[in-house]
Amino acid sequence: MEVLDQVSGKWSIGILVAAAHGPVRFTELERTVNGISRRMLTLTLRRLERDGLLVRKVYPTVPPKVEYTATSAARELFGPLTALTEWAERHRTTIAQARHVYDLENAEKGSAAG
Amino acid sequence: MEVLDQVSGKWSIGILVAAAHGPVRFTELERTVNGISRRMLTLTLRRLERDGLLVRKVYPTVPPKVEYTATSAARELFGPLTALTEWAERHRTTIAQARHVYDLENAEKGSAAG
Repeated sequence: MEVLDQVSGKWSIGILVAAAHGPVRFTELERTVNGISRRMLTLTLRRLERDGLLVRKVYPTVPPKVEYTATSAARELFGPLTALTEWAERHRTTIAQARHVYDLENAEKGSAAG
Repeated sequence: MEVLDQVSGKWSIGILVAAAHGPVRFTELERTVNGISRRMLTLTLRRLERDGLLVRKVYPTVPPKVEYTATSAARELFGPLTALTEWAERHRTTIAQARHVYDLENAEKGSAAG
């Protein structure tokens, strides 16, 4: 299920959820996918294209316009991926708190055993 | 959305989907999560526990029995994660074919430009 790692990484999710609303351009994705670098965007787009999830179209304008459109296989992902992003948003604080408690407890165990 | 990378990696998905049916034991997970090493299972379980998605319970038997139970936050993930695994299963072949075509096309482009 190695492909799961591919499609469910945060950058892929960001790009695919953005492409859910129709063709997207590189510069648009650079703005909307929070925190992604130009290099990571280029690599992830190339990987999603290679996996058959995005189709890349170059328009012969000057400068050339490049658009990415989600394939039918990608569109099937929109539901689960949107649900994942909403879940992450909903639980951002509870996860941060759980980590804090876990780190405290394990720090104590560490010092008690020391 | 860094937590998305955590919960949506293939090992986390394997473990969480297994825990959807009730408490699970380490040895059981080692058998059911396809291809996971003992070390990766240990690390991923620890991370999911730290994120507040699994609760670890040790029973004072000899040898001690260790069980992992999904929290309510984790149970909310079962739907989207199960849908993702089913999607990956459905599209395993189409993705493999897409990669093959992409690699051929790009090999040609490479040799034409060489």
